Amino acid sequence: MASVATIQPAKHPSFIYYEKEPFNGGPLPSMARTEFITPTDLFYVRCHGNIPALDAAKYRLSIKGLVARPVELTLENLRSDFTPHTVAATLQCAGNRRDELIQVKEVPGESPWTGNAISHGVWTGARLADVLASAGLDASAAKFVEFIGHDKTEKKDHSPFGGSVPLSKALAPETLLAYALDGQPLPQVHGFPVRAIVPGYLGARSVKWLHEINVRAEPSDNLFQAEEYRLHPADATKAHHDAASALPLGEVPVNSYICRIQRGHPGGAAPMVVEGWAYVGGGNEIHRVEISEDEGEHWTQAELLPMPSDVQTADEEGGRWSWRFWRAELPAAEMAPVQIVVRAWDTATNVQPSRPEDLWNFKGYANNAWHRLVSARAS
Amino acid sequence: MASVATIQPAKHPSFIYYEKEPFNGGPLPSMARTEFITPTDLFYVRCHGNIPALDAAKYRLSIKGLVARPVELTLENLRSDFTPHTVAATLQCAGNRRDELIQVKEVPGESPWTGNAISHGVWTGARLADVLASAGLDASAAKFVEFIGHDKTEKKDHSPFGGSVPLSKALAPETLLAYALDGQPLPQVHGFPVRAIVPGYLGARSVKWLHEINVRAEPSDNLFQAEEYRLHPADATKAHHDAASALPLGEVPVNSYICRIQRGHPGGAAPMVVEGWAYVGGGNEIHRVEISEDEGEHWTQAELLPMPSDVQTADEEGGRWSWRFWRAELPAAEMAPVQIVVRAWDTATNVQPSRPEDLWNFKGYANNAWHRLVSARAS
Repeated sequence: MASVATIQPAKHPSFIYYEKEPFNGGPLPSMARTEFITPTDLFYVRCHGNIPALDAAKYRLSIKGLVARPVELTLENLRSDFTPHTVAATLQCAGNRRDELIQVKEVPGESPWTGNAISHGVWTGARLADVLASAGLDASAAKFVEFIGHDKTEKKDHSPFGGSVPLSKALAPETLLAYALDGQPLPQVHGFPVRAIVPGYLGARSVKWLHEINVRAEPSDNLFQAEEYRLHPADATKAHHDAASALPLGEVPVNSYICRIQRGHPGGAAPMVVEGWAYVGGGNEIHRVEISEDEGEHWTQAELLPMPSDVQTADEEGGRWSWRFWRAELPAAEMAPVQIVVRAWDTATNVQPSRPEDLWNFKGYANNAWHRLVSARAS
Repeated sequence: MASVATIQPAKHPSFIYYEKEPFNGGPLPSMARTEFITPTDLFYVRCHGNIPALDAAKYRLSIKGLVARPVELTLENLRSDFTPHTVAATLQCAGNRRDELIQVKEVPGESPWTGNAISHGVWTGARLADVLASAGLDASAAKFVEFIGHDKTEKKDHSPFGGSVPLSKALAPETLLAYALDGQPLPQVHGFPVRAIVPGYLGARSVKWLHEINVRAEPSDNLFQAEEYRLHPADATKAHHDAASALPLGEVPVNSYICRIQRGHPGGAAPMVVEGWAYVGGGNEIHRVEISEDEGEHWTQAELLPMPSDVQTADEEGGRWSWRFWRAELPAAEMAPVQIVVRAWDTATNVQPSRPEDLWNFKGYANNAWHRLVSARAS
């Protein structure tokens, strides 16, 4: 079994490890915003168990359940028997920005992710729809597609990580069985040799080290679908909660984050520059990002930066599943630290809610409150 | 031309008229929550011009633009040549709950709708997809489908009302060319003889008194698509704004509203009962409705009431496009008036933002802040 110390390629020296076993970590928030395609050594990692070391030559992916012809595919089958497709997609962990919820109230036993549990890759693989069609999908009975990994989780029975998506999402053109990230074979910690990529959904559904795909009439009963990754009401606790009535996380709501504030010199020519990311899943797009220096009394529109042309060219989905970078300039009016607030709107008129206090839940999931960052003093 | 005074069937005696020409009005908010299928005489009305009095026998609907075989259909064609489909769908005006934005700051020239610009009907008609297929849709060039009405709007040139939806929505099974509401021919004010029904979108896209359907490569350039029904930033004004950069309204974000509070007697057996509606468009569903007596410090879950069985039976879309009614009981603890707050979450983890102050825009559109209602004293 690989450990964090031995995995290759190694993570960046500034990578923040919340846990080493299971391996969980991400970049400094300021470094999440440097390059549109996240450098692999800064790509966040969320594991629930070991990091399987799989032999590509011996790899087999089982397609079973409600299909006419259950099949075991080799990596070569996936590469050669199906048209490769390339999709640019952001992945975001359900615990992204949990640290702000922890400041409201304790979130027992969960890592204090900042706005760094989000990264962007260009994924290449077979369309899940094509693979399911080749196995003879039973479209009348099938309602969900389950992904099961090769890992052994930290749960008592060491059962593998898994989850499911509705059939409509499984059959959507953006949903891949990916074997490459940014033109290279998947790194081991990111699911080598094959992982699911479910753009627009929480990262947990993009199951790594894929072992089985089960076509089902019901959602997965894997622990990480049936019990975890659910949004509970504010009065639920770790000791007293009801998973069945909680919301299974799926499409990611509109979110934005300030990664950096560069202060200009008051009276000087250089303005204050504020930069960050914005993201929404579910096929919606970011329409507008706004920043405020007075806690939302007045808003200034940030500039939404275009997707780099090489990503535009590679992406078959027209940028629908990618984050946006944004940048705003404000007059550098004073020396004292200032608190900047950001919020984003999506194309379905959803806007981020204002206060993390209103979003607290005992798992610390799905925080998309306005983000606030206090700048350094001007220099 | 019909006027409000002469249209039949007449509206309910308690119907609130914001304007009589053009005809705009809706029920008392408390009466929006009485029956799941809104009684026709309480169904809200939003017009931008006259109420055309069309002769069903002479009615023709033009299908043109990017189609191989432009055609004019009679009402009988629509009824007989295409399989009828029935969809239960809520319509909501973009100005629903504008009154709360007006309390923040003036919204010049717009009607002060409360939470009454929303109603629910069971619509029957031909699928737009079927009609477009019969006309030979040019699927390679078509990107939008435009609806143009028979009315003469209050705008300078008296051009008819219109708008467009993306092709994917036009081809979705829920999108109808409806000729019946709740099993009866459309009432005159609701679009007789044929209107578009675009479930999940703002009501303005469900164009009434349909005259033309144009398949286009670009969105409609009708005034009500190109300039109106757009969400502007908070600093835009009636005198200074840029329609091109504003967000064209489309899918309706998560919303909820308190229609009634019945106070129990303190110390008595009867609780306080709070009732209202919740709604989200875009194919998401309402997951949870919560009420609070302390401005969101603590939340109590409301009961989401099931869709009536006759609506379930009629609706081919499994309730996806319908509002939900909800009900909550709270202890009747004191005599003084209390302020109750409601918010809802949808299945994509979107939650209503807290303050109308954060949503103000000069057109007064898309208010989905937490709704607050102060009860009467207990008796």
